Amino acid sequence: MTKSTLSTVSIDLGERSYPIHIGSNLFGTASSYASLPKASHAVVVTNTTVSPLYADALMSALGAHYPAVELVVLPDGESNKNWQTLNDIFDALLGKGCDRKTILFALGGGVIGDMTGFAAASYMRGVPFVQVPTTLLSQVDSSVGGKTGINHPLGKNMIGAFYQPLLVVCDIDTLITLPARELSAGLAEVIKYGPIADLGFLDWIEANLQALLDRNPEALAYAVQRSCEIKSWVVGQDEREAGLRAILNFGHTFGHAIEAGLGYGEWLHGEAVGCGMVMAAHLSQRLGLVDAGFVSRLTGLIARAGLPIKGPSLDASDNAGRYLDLMRLDKKSEAGEIRFVVIDETGHAFMRGAPDAVVREVVDLCCI
Amino acid sequence: MTKSTLSTVSIDLGERSYPIHIGSNLFGTASSYASLPKASHAVVVTNTTVSPLYADALMSALGAHYPAVELVVLPDGESNKNWQTLNDIFDALLGKGCDRKTILFALGGGVIGDMTGFAAASYMRGVPFVQVPTTLLSQVDSSVGGKTGINHPLGKNMIGAFYQPLLVVCDIDTLITLPARELSAGLAEVIKYGPIADLGFLDWIEANLQALLDRNPEALAYAVQRSCEIKSWVVGQDEREAGLRAILNFGHTFGHAIEAGLGYGEWLHGEAVGCGMVMAAHLSQRLGLVDAGFVSRLTGLIARAGLPIKGPSLDASDNAGRYLDLMRLDKKSEAGEIRFVVIDETGHAFMRGAPDAVVREVVDLCCI
Repeated sequence: MTKSTLSTVSIDLGERSYPIHIGSNLFGTASSYASLPKASHAVVVTNTTVSPLYADALMSALGAHYPAVELVVLPDGESNKNWQTLNDIFDALLGKGCDRKTILFALGGGVIGDMTGFAAASYMRGVPFVQVPTTLLSQVDSSVGGKTGINHPLGKNMIGAFYQPLLVVCDIDTLITLPARELSAGLAEVIKYGPIADLGFLDWIEANLQALLDRNPEALAYAVQRSCEIKSWVVGQDEREAGLRAILNFGHTFGHAIEAGLGYGEWLHGEAVGCGMVMAAHLSQRLGLVDAGFVSRLTGLIARAGLPIKGPSLDASDNAGRYLDLMRLDKKSEAGEIRFVVIDETGHAFMRGAPDAVVREVVDLCCI
Repeated sequence: MTKSTLSTVSIDLGERSYPIHIGSNLFGTASSYASLPKASHAVVVTNTTVSPLYADALMSALGAHYPAVELVVLPDGESNKNWQTLNDIFDALLGKGCDRKTILFALGGGVIGDMTGFAAASYMRGVPFVQVPTTLLSQVDSSVGGKTGINHPLGKNMIGAFYQPLLVVCDIDTLITLPARELSAGLAEVIKYGPIADLGFLDWIEANLQALLDRNPEALAYAVQRSCEIKSWVVGQDEREAGLRAILNFGHTFGHAIEAGLGYGEWLHGEAVGCGMVMAAHLSQRLGLVDAGFVSRLTGLIARAGLPIKGPSLDASDNAGRYLDLMRLDKKSEAGEIRFVVIDETGHAFMRGAPDAVVREVVDLCCI
């Protein structure tokens, strides 16, 4: 098989710039890693689900460049994105004598990318790392932005670092075997890029949704490329989330409340974001920013993508109050005021506060 | 009492630049913090020893600027510089609803500074922090360089981040009540700046050692100022320790082995560095870089400062082998080769490997 790079998105962050290669036959091909610095150790960090599928091929490709290629296999799932599992990586790195030039390779979805990235940011105060995302969600989301971290019992991603990879390899082949539920979860983040930044891309997604669900490689590669381009454009203007970057969290404020309220891992992150976008669209409508037709269009697309459009009940006695309490813990909150990402009908998003009463109406309307 | 700033050292790191104020009546004076950004929460992180001495005064001064001033008191000592104690800070920050503009104030010695700095680097992927170092060691060492972190059972400072404070307030008054053993430990790092960078400063320390031991405020302030200036000059050229900065670890490679071998907290860090400098001087002599007279001069000064000049036995059957094993875990090691900081007689330091046999001779000579 020959390496086939369909496209490369360049993430321009000065001395922390890096490329994202998107295509087929990439991750198991030695030449994909030829540009990386030399090191005595390469360490592949993956999970119990991904390891049997792809670890051998990646390690074999890395063997062409590094004297020692090590493997660290973590338990799968968002519920393991915690300090204990992170410490398993540190134990392995120290146990194997890894020095500060060791390169970590994150092979898996967003949880693996976030934990491996934070381990790389923190091990000996920083070693290089490479992302090899194997889910649609991680290809379109974690590939750009440098967000790494772990969860805390009181909040998602509360502990972490902004830390950029040296390289991201998005191999579309890994999406062919992805469970349908995870493909849909990834489509939530793809859909997100339309209303916040590019209505032309929203049109494209509507026209090509069936091809994406059928895993057409060209359609998937374009969806990954355009998502990374849009995210890159946003992050390039605001690397450390001082302002504009927060629009990438469209649907996430409600979504994080769902994830935290149900317990991490119950719903997939993308499922919570899908449902959260429906809620955020309704909130935007109530704030006079979009009309009912736009909300209906977006809700229909999210449903067609196989995502939930109704939120779970988190508290039988005061469901909306529970959502509000959880959202006040969101990192975008300031002095207890929840900051929502809302959209208008021209493909723009921005931050807004909202009266509790309006948020309660939206939650009541959008929950089962 | 009036605020008395004797001097200010400016740490020039582009957009991460910050000032170090050195003087008397500083930390408990509201105007010391007037330049800081607004925030809803200020959080003072300190330990059980320092809290009863200085926490009230600091919190009172901060009360002039922040609506809420919180206190987090950690157990004292290097043995608590671990994940569990770090997590106590995260628990407190989340429990008090601290957002990403919250400013952390590290009130204490190096352990408090390192842990608070890493907590600030990691909480919500980074909140601002201020150092209020209350020991000589932390005033001359942790004030400059942005090194933060915690220990791992397999190595000191193995997990951390480079993260700069907004401001450092070195109040000489806090050194008056410092236990003699800790004053000596701080002098180890002060002495270090002589042989690695400024023989004129080495002369000054020799001439003023008694005044420093007597806690003369002007002498202490100058020692802090000159140490910070030298460290700043080194770090300014190499913020992320790619090369030159490693010379600041003169004495630390041997010293870390002593600390790790005895168990963290048995010897103070400065004591291990003092003894480690004696070992590194002997190593430099054996590599032909300094003569016996220079080794003797430096050893005599370290002894006069009240520091140990003989290392502990870490393994009755193969002491030197144990030192070597521990030093191979040092972060400066590359591919298993230990990189030592050595000195010449012109006030310069640099990195060198050394044959195991020579290192063994030095350890045998310098241990009890």
